[in-house]
Amino acid sequence: MDQEAIDAGLRTRAEVLGLAHVQQSMGAEADFSRPLEELVSAYCWNEIWNRPGLDRRTRSAINLAMLTALNRPQQLKLHIQGALNNGLGRTEVQEVLLQCAVYCGVPAGMDAFRVARETFAELEKA
Amino acid sequence: MDQEAIDAGLRTRAEVLGLAHVQQSMGAEADFSRPLEELVSAYCWNEIWNRPGLDRRTRSAINLAMLTALNRPQQLKLHIQGALNNGLGRTEVQEVLLQCAVYCGVPAGMDAFRVARETFAELEKA
Amino acid sequence: MDQEAIDAGLRTRAEVLGLAHVQQSMGAEADFSRPLEELVSAYCWNEIWNRPGLDRRTRSAINLAMLTALNRPQQLKLHIQGALNNGLGRTEVQEVLLQCAVYCGVPAGMDAFRVARETFAELEKA
Amino acid sequence: MDQEAIDAGLRTRAEVLGLAHVQQSMGAEADFSRPLEELVSAYCWNEIWNRPGLDRRTRSAINLAMLTALNRPQQLKLHIQGALNNGLGRTEVQEVLLQCAVYCGVPAGMDAFRVARETFAELEKA
Amino acid sequence: MDQEAIDAGLRTRAEVLGLAHVQQSMGAEADFSRPLEELVSAYCWNEIWNRPGLDRRTRSAINLAMLTALNRPQQLKLHIQGALNNGLGRTEVQEVLLQCAVYCGVPAGMDAFRVARETFAELEKA
Amino acid sequence: MDQEAIDAGLRTRAEVLGLAHVQQSMGAEADFSRPLEELVSAYCWNEIWNRPGLDRRTRSAINLAMLTALNRPQQLKLHIQGALNNGLGRTEVQEVLLQCAVYCGVPAGMDAFRVARETFAELEKA
Repeated sequence: MDQEAIDAGLRTRAEVLGLAHVQQSMGAEADFSRPLEELVSAYCWNEIWNRPGLDRRTRSAINLAMLTALNRPQQLKLHIQGALNNGLGRTEVQEVLLQCAVYCGVPAGMDAFRVARETFAELEKA
Repeated sequence: MDQEAIDAGLRTRAEVLGLAHVQQSMGAEADFSRPLEELVSAYCWNEIWNRPGLDRRTRSAINLAMLTALNRPQQLKLHIQGALNNGLGRTEVQEVLLQCAVYCGVPAGMDAFRVARETFAELEKA
Repeated sequence: MDQEAIDAGLRTRAEVLGLAHVQQSMGAEADFSRPLEELVSAYCWNEIWNRPGLDRRTRSAINLAMLTALNRPQQLKLHIQGALNNGLGRTEVQEVLLQCAVYCGVPAGMDAFRVARETFAELEKA
Repeated sequence: MDQEAIDAGLRTRAEVLGLAHVQQSMGAEADFSRPLEELVSAYCWNEIWNRPGLDRRTRSAINLAMLTALNRPQQLKLHIQGALNNGLGRTEVQEVLLQCAVYCGVPAGMDAFRVARETFAELEKA
Repeated sequence: MDQEAIDAGLRTRAEVLGLAHVQQSMGAEADFSRPLEELVSAYCWNEIWNRPGLDRRTRSAINLAMLTALNRPQQLKLHIQGALNNGLGRTEVQEVLLQCAVYCGVPAGMDAFRVARETFAELEKA
Repeated sequence: MDQEAIDAGLRTRAEVLGLAHVQQSMGAEADFSRPLEELVSAYCWNEIWNRPGLDRRTRSAINLAMLTALNRPQQLKLHIQGALNNGLGRTEVQEVLLQCAVYCGVPAGMDAFRVARETFAELEKA
């Protein structure tokens, strides 16, 4: 894989999800996951997130919607933090998840709101 | 159900998805679906779409993402038209679906792009 | 596989989904599917459907809900016919699908209602 | 949103899922979730659950099936309790989940049975 | 259900997932799950796993892919252990999950790799 | 995106899915899909399919399983052809899909077998 693409992706990933997350993901403990982390850094974070056609705020909004639809609470938590970093307010996160509750169904909405409450509670403690 | 909420939802629905779509959905042929159409008009199109906290362009973008994740091509087609009505350009639709391909998986992305191509082809014929 | 279980399943399957469906499923054209058809007849239609703990009407109702959630329109169409055979009225089918629209999301509900309308239209022609 | 619809929904919700659940859901800690809780109370619990066309026992049965298909264990746990409140016996819960195992796949069935066992164990301790 | 089929399935299940897993699954505490465990032993583990047309290594590989796609982490953990028992190396598990990340989407891949890391860590402690 | 990676992916893609498929995918009509096709060629077909750690036959088998689980019939059809090109026999395709019917549920299995029958019928006509 192209090391430049990996590095460019890692920079964007750190800006959105935080440097601590990136350091942990690429650390020695995650050895087994290395090929995945490189793939995700190059393709998802460079080839997609670094494309100019859509601002990061909108990219974060559609990620919250997809992660709710796909039922992936751990990734949703990460990307709620990322959404705040990208300038989405808590009320806008609420709006996105409310719309998800109607399109993905009430149970998906209930789970997503719980994840959001937990994420906000953790951020307040930190 | 509250008739005012249904009517307010139907107006928004017609602005986004077109009057023809609404007339067909509420027409005599759709008699069996009446309770669903009323529920969707009040619950989805008034309670959600008429909330002020998020602009329609962003609401359209997250809908494209959810409908791709949820594997609902017929609704995706409708909402690609709605997204264009709400001011999203074709290149932005492309950007949203490209991001979906990475988060929802390549097969979801391939299917969503085919639906988009078909929708654009139909619009050009019309 | 136990031939008696297959045969007992096929009888129940014919009572619920119709003899024509069973004859087509087990016919020569479906040669490639034979192992699946036998598995489904024994496993699904005998081991599950022939259990006494739940009446067929309730079994049909939960099948409509699952098939809507699982996004399987062709199987949904078959089981709407089966539900009518098992004594569920059209209004009850409508109620089940309406509840699905809220728990599985509006797009799932819209698709399920369209399948139901098509199924009823075909039954009226027949 | 119509306050009467919210209140009527909350009463049904308390009858099915218990007063404690409703008080917690609408309590001060759940401030962020307020718009969702109101939406769910009015639309899901009043517009759907209060419709006369289907008895609560059947509504509970199809909910267990949907929540298993949708892979939502926390909501499944709540609705297993609700199903018992609505008159479904443990053996009937078992029958519903057994049918789910065949239609939604063995892993969905295994997870749903574990949730049911945990729910029953908690109820025995309480 | 045919007791011979159950027993033949239980033997294969013990060879793949371990005797401890089978004893726990069929033990007294799992009383409520008995009908499911018998169904799974006879149909999944005898009718499918004991068929000669596909070696166990390939069966394990496709199970890892399905469990990642179906979002069932607990079953995935069990079947990663089973895959190792069936002769798949850790690097091959990695390859399968990497391919899943592209076809099922990055969040599915991230979750599956975390499950694999946890499974390997537990095996090293044991 | 790295043109060499795209080209290397396109070669593998043509070997597995056929040159005609690649020419159509990259042709002028698919202009809107160009960024996706390039992404898929580089990311999926070069970075994943060209990795040495798993033979193509196994990669095809796990793809059939994922595409059945993900409910993507058009991609499943393509990859059944690819699986035959990669040396999987029809009976092995049958075995994979049979295992899917038990893990992904009977409706997923029924749909996948129908897709397989249609694919084989088309290949016989060609």
